Amino acid sequence: MSSQSISAMARGMVGSEILRIAGNVRTLQAQGRTVCNFTVGDFAPSQFPIPEALRDAAIESYSAGRTNYPPAEGVLALRKAVLAHYEKRLGLRYPLESIQIISGARPGLYAAYGVLIDPGETVIYPVPSWNNNHYAYLCGAKAIEVPTRPEDGFLPTAALLEPFIQEARLISINSPLNPAGTMISPEELRKISELIVNENTRRKELGLRLLYLVYDQIYWELQLGDIRHVTPIEVMPEMAAYTIFIDGISKSWAATGLRVGWVVAPPHITDRIKAFLNHVGAWAPHPEQEATAHILNSVEVLDDFYANMHNEVRARLNLIYNAVQEMKAAGLPVDAIAPQGAIYLSTQFDLVGKSLDGVPITSNAQIGDILLEQAGVALVPFQAFGLRQETGWMRLSVGAVSIADVEQCIPRMRAILERVK
Amino acid sequence: MSSQSISAMARGMVGSEILRIAGNVRTLQAQGRTVCNFTVGDFAPSQFPIPEALRDAAIESYSAGRTNYPPAEGVLALRKAVLAHYEKRLGLRYPLESIQIISGARPGLYAAYGVLIDPGETVIYPVPSWNNNHYAYLCGAKAIEVPTRPEDGFLPTAALLEPFIQEARLISINSPLNPAGTMISPEELRKISELIVNENTRRKELGLRLLYLVYDQIYWELQLGDIRHVTPIEVMPEMAAYTIFIDGISKSWAATGLRVGWVVAPPHITDRIKAFLNHVGAWAPHPEQEATAHILNSVEVLDDFYANMHNEVRARLNLIYNAVQEMKAAGLPVDAIAPQGAIYLSTQFDLVGKSLDGVPITSNAQIGDILLEQAGVALVPFQAFGLRQETGWMRLSVGAVSIADVEQCIPRMRAILERVK
Repeated sequence: MSSQSISAMARGMVGSEILRIAGNVRTLQAQGRTVCNFTVGDFAPSQFPIPEALRDAAIESYSAGRTNYPPAEGVLALRKAVLAHYEKRLGLRYPLESIQIISGARPGLYAAYGVLIDPGETVIYPVPSWNNNHYAYLCGAKAIEVPTRPEDGFLPTAALLEPFIQEARLISINSPLNPAGTMISPEELRKISELIVNENTRRKELGLRLLYLVYDQIYWELQLGDIRHVTPIEVMPEMAAYTIFIDGISKSWAATGLRVGWVVAPPHITDRIKAFLNHVGAWAPHPEQEATAHILNSVEVLDDFYANMHNEVRARLNLIYNAVQEMKAAGLPVDAIAPQGAIYLSTQFDLVGKSLDGVPITSNAQIGDILLEQAGVALVPFQAFGLRQETGWMRLSVGAVSIADVEQCIPRMRAILERVK
Repeated sequence: MSSQSISAMARGMVGSEILRIAGNVRTLQAQGRTVCNFTVGDFAPSQFPIPEALRDAAIESYSAGRTNYPPAEGVLALRKAVLAHYEKRLGLRYPLESIQIISGARPGLYAAYGVLIDPGETVIYPVPSWNNNHYAYLCGAKAIEVPTRPEDGFLPTAALLEPFIQEARLISINSPLNPAGTMISPEELRKISELIVNENTRRKELGLRLLYLVYDQIYWELQLGDIRHVTPIEVMPEMAAYTIFIDGISKSWAATGLRVGWVVAPPHITDRIKAFLNHVGAWAPHPEQEATAHILNSVEVLDDFYANMHNEVRARLNLIYNAVQEMKAAGLPVDAIAPQGAIYLSTQFDLVGKSLDGVPITSNAQIGDILLEQAGVALVPFQAFGLRQETGWMRLSVGAVSIADVEQCIPRMRAILERVK
């Protein structure tokens, strides 16, 4: 049936593992079970509301009748606000033609792959990472997945990427990192940028197609610790010619449902992304564009909002992190990486090769199922982000849980770990 | 430079002719010239506000914190409301799995092409029509453009499509028709549906890939005359297996900036459109989804809104139509097709082969430029919609003009026509 009706592209598309787990969570909840849901990269508005000023500005947009088409490239006030925000907070200077407003971050990733990659060209991306496999598939790229290491916070290093550089047309990096909650260091980003700049110097001499970096910094305003977010351009200004920034309000303002994002790139690339996404129709809604411009221009409002939101995120992440460290100190097979950014905690349930009630544990997926079914704790194995090693690493996302939820689930996790032999 | 940096797809993308004309309009307006802007398929909120109840419901969504991710398939209340609306007003019954909420109509067209067409397969669409050329290009289809005739209201007929049926994988039809403002008749739609059903009976016996119909009915609630909008399923129930409806609130509620649309299709096709558009990220914003559900369920609110909006659209279209008929009766080389639906009037400035101030007139584009520069009347030649014949046909869109704007521009148009030899 399907080969008679749909396209090869549509037949080959892989569903989201996270959505499968979300389905299991809903099933258990429908049975009346308590589930602490660490799976979704989203926010419960009761826990993490959007900035009040953003809500008020959206309502004001409606009252002012900002209900017709926004310009194809986005509302001018918003594009100017993004520029000013980037200059003020990231030290970046771009022309207006570099900014394209889009519907969240996803269309930017999809379009960056689409306007850069010819079918068969090579994309390299670290794993675990989010959705690069799907974007590589959709543009027909050859994907080289580079496994990262827990001791590097699951972040890519120049040494890991270097063997594939000559073949690559695109490198995709995300920092702060979904799923690990870690952030790339200026030193490592400088080394990676050097690789790219040197490789492009070589290619220009040979007339070869250039190497680009998609730098997905959708979580960059969620810096939780002492590590400061850096951009490739800050560590190496020549990278401005090769970097496509993906960004937006979805995560930093807990506004995933408002669908406002942007791409910042060299103008000739932004121009093609604009043309592509205009046909696709992945525009941010007009009232929300106006509202976002207003808030981006309100420095104090933003700073107050961030201070509070970051405290709330930190409180949840630290609660789990500290509990994990306590269990580890007690000899239980669990570990975690100290939270640095975003809303995620990398947690290792080191259970593969062990057993529970006499049943051997052989995979991360099985660990996830055990924690969900027996402890009511839902989390996402790093397998869902492309990591193949069955080493027990999981993503815990805290955007949709309360402090009380977290407190209540810790003993349930601990009880499982204590039963493992 | 570009072959070193961007993809072949991105290099081959053609910009929008309408956006080029819009740029010319802005240039003239910046010079202080009065321009009656009939170019944009959009609404001036001052002339055509969204329903007040929609605005209030959107504000209520914000107050209720509907600001996180909507479900991947769209908010349940909205999907149910679309089903009920289709059953009540179109007599269509679908399962919930058929409905995918998307960001306006464009992503539906893009995704329908993408999940149905393999590169090299054939798409047929009538011209003039909107954007099919871009969607065919983006999925690598072979495009067969079928020119339609003014005496058919520029709508496709079974006789025009029939020669290409055996080759086609997809037919794309839009009614009410952008750009012509005309509507397909039940008789002709039945004949086309028969062609498709019969062709698929043949293909099923042979195990061949099936033929689908994209039925873009984004303007269907803007029925202005005596002709009633019909669907392929109404005239031939077997078409339910082969029809992909594209729809949304953009035009019928003057809500182009709110980015709420939907696809209704057989569940196995909707499922692939969902998977594809989830990666693309072309989701409708959450607050607007909730608000749309609320209004779709409010029959009286909708009926009141439509009554008023349709009167306003009709008043503008009839004003021009009647003026054109008057000029035609006076022997001037102009004609128009009586408005039936949408916000458009097909108007013919029959000037090719004539001359103005001794300058010969040779193309529709030239006529458009003359009307813009010398009469301050901006309209879009049917060339922008794929028609190649230089017969003077233009689209006039009335969503962004006032009655007074129209009244003032008519003598300016007439003055030009009177100078033509």
